[in-house]
Amino acid sequence: MQNVDLYTSLADAAYQGTPGAYSEEAAQQLLGEAARLMPCATIEQAFDAVIDGRASHAVVPVDGALSGTVAETYDLLLSHDLRISGETMINIDHVLVAPAATPLAAVRRVLSHPIALSQCAEFFRAHPKIEAVSVFDTAAAVRMALDAGDGSTAAIASRRAAALHGASIISEHVQDHPENWTRFLVLSTPSQAAAVERPRKAVVAFGLRHEAGALVRALEPIAAAGLSITKIEGRPIRGRPFEYRFVVEMVAPEGGVIDASAFDALRGATSWLKVLGAF
Amino acid sequence: MQNVDLYTSLADAAYQGTPGAYSEEAAQQLLGEAARLMPCATIEQAFDAVIDGRASHAVVPVDGALSGTVAETYDLLLSHDLRISGETMINIDHVLVAPAATPLAAVRRVLSHPIALSQCAEFFRAHPKIEAVSVFDTAAAVRMALDAGDGSTAAIASRRAAALHGASIISEHVQDHPENWTRFLVLSTPSQAAAVERPRKAVVAFGLRHEAGALVRALEPIAAAGLSITKIEGRPIRGRPFEYRFVVEMVAPEGGVIDASAFDALRGATSWLKVLGAF
Repeated sequence: MQNVDLYTSLADAAYQGTPGAYSEEAAQQLLGEAARLMPCATIEQAFDAVIDGRASHAVVPVDGALSGTVAETYDLLLSHDLRISGETMINIDHVLVAPAATPLAAVRRVLSHPIALSQCAEFFRAHPKIEAVSVFDTAAAVRMALDAGDGSTAAIASRRAAALHGASIISEHVQDHPENWTRFLVLSTPSQAAAVERPRKAVVAFGLRHEAGALVRALEPIAAAGLSITKIEGRPIRGRPFEYRFVVEMVAPEGGVIDASAFDALRGATSWLKVLGAF
Repeated sequence: MQNVDLYTSLADAAYQGTPGAYSEEAAQQLLGEAARLMPCATIEQAFDAVIDGRASHAVVPVDGALSGTVAETYDLLLSHDLRISGETMINIDHVLVAPAATPLAAVRRVLSHPIALSQCAEFFRAHPKIEAVSVFDTAAAVRMALDAGDGSTAAIASRRAAALHGASIISEHVQDHPENWTRFLVLSTPSQAAAVERPRKAVVAFGLRHEAGALVRALEPIAAAGLSITKIEGRPIRGRPFEYRFVVEMVAPEGGVIDASAFDALRGATSWLKVLGAF
């Protein structure tokens, strides 16, 4: 019986937000519609749920077309020992929603996640009398707007969250650009991460001394292995003025595979290296 | 007399925010206490003020220790033809302020700039009943909290903005980490940008095809010129799935200088190159 208890108490994935959140949609895409999902208030709590063994995976946003890198996720990947085992892209198409029969002219405040609010900057510029209120999750914003029921509070969220909570759609496509996606990663502990047999993509973090040519020397083994760099971020390390931290994503050509020996060469050219995942 | 009119109508620098904003502090540090400054509602409006000739410079935030890159500034640097001629770092030390005699327990909503709110995430986690409300500027948030005068609205801003508006400080150092700085750039038109004689630092943007080794080939001329890369950001270009855009900052060693010939070699290794500034 213990096994059954353990089984039912363990979620397949922890995610930041509440049902109807874009992260929940990403988790379902990565782990299937039947996956048992655990809502969390913060991205850090989703990481902690995996580390504590309450969830076998976490599904977290990593970057978006309009909003750029989610710095918090990169920081957590470096401070927690989880591995990336896959990714997916979610099309982010925001709607403005409110209780039934609220006209746009009556809206005085709009609740949403701060990143969603930043993706709709032009809407708020065009409606300077509407206040943008940050809450921790887009789907929770819909519920809060319905609960407020004051005829002047709306929310920005997905069409899916609107349907789930029975809210009316006042405006569609309220984000600044039609092409708005967010990329999500699926994470698990190093021991639980099933080794992907023929990984085509990898994400590594490393440190470099502040020296001419240090970055070129670190990237040469990646180029020599025939891999393309699809994303790179590097910036000073807080409180360590002469050291730099880089996160690099690389991909093998169509049909190719990433060989772990590329990481060995990379390790020799950096002051520290952490392979965050190969999938 | 015309000259006098022209002189008085032209600001020394446009910045995003209102008097008391961190950007105003950066502009005074870069251009002197006596500089005539033009407040703007958005970063884009500060760029436009320089392009239209209403201000000779713009001072804009580019990245921060806690919040990462200001993606909007990078995007505007690529879409507008301005040049970077210098930079400064401002220590960001937020205080929570309200009308006199407001106890923390009475605060129900806190107004501030969305980036400032994100730098104080732990404060909001510790006070889940307090609502975070995004407004366009930290200093304006102070004025709005005083104007609300409802005994429950506070603001997060600098000590300087609090003093300027006569607000009381409820809590100090409300940001997540004590070491919190933001870096600001000073911009002007290519014709107005006085060429710096011996630049030690440069910022360039370039495009690369999605090919193995493309980034290493682009960075080699920088290394060959003896320059260190102090920041690099690269990510896919929206709507162009096989192209990548990079922004690279480089610095010459102590006492050294950046020679423009390094850019020529870089131009040959990239699909396009824009030198955003050398200073």
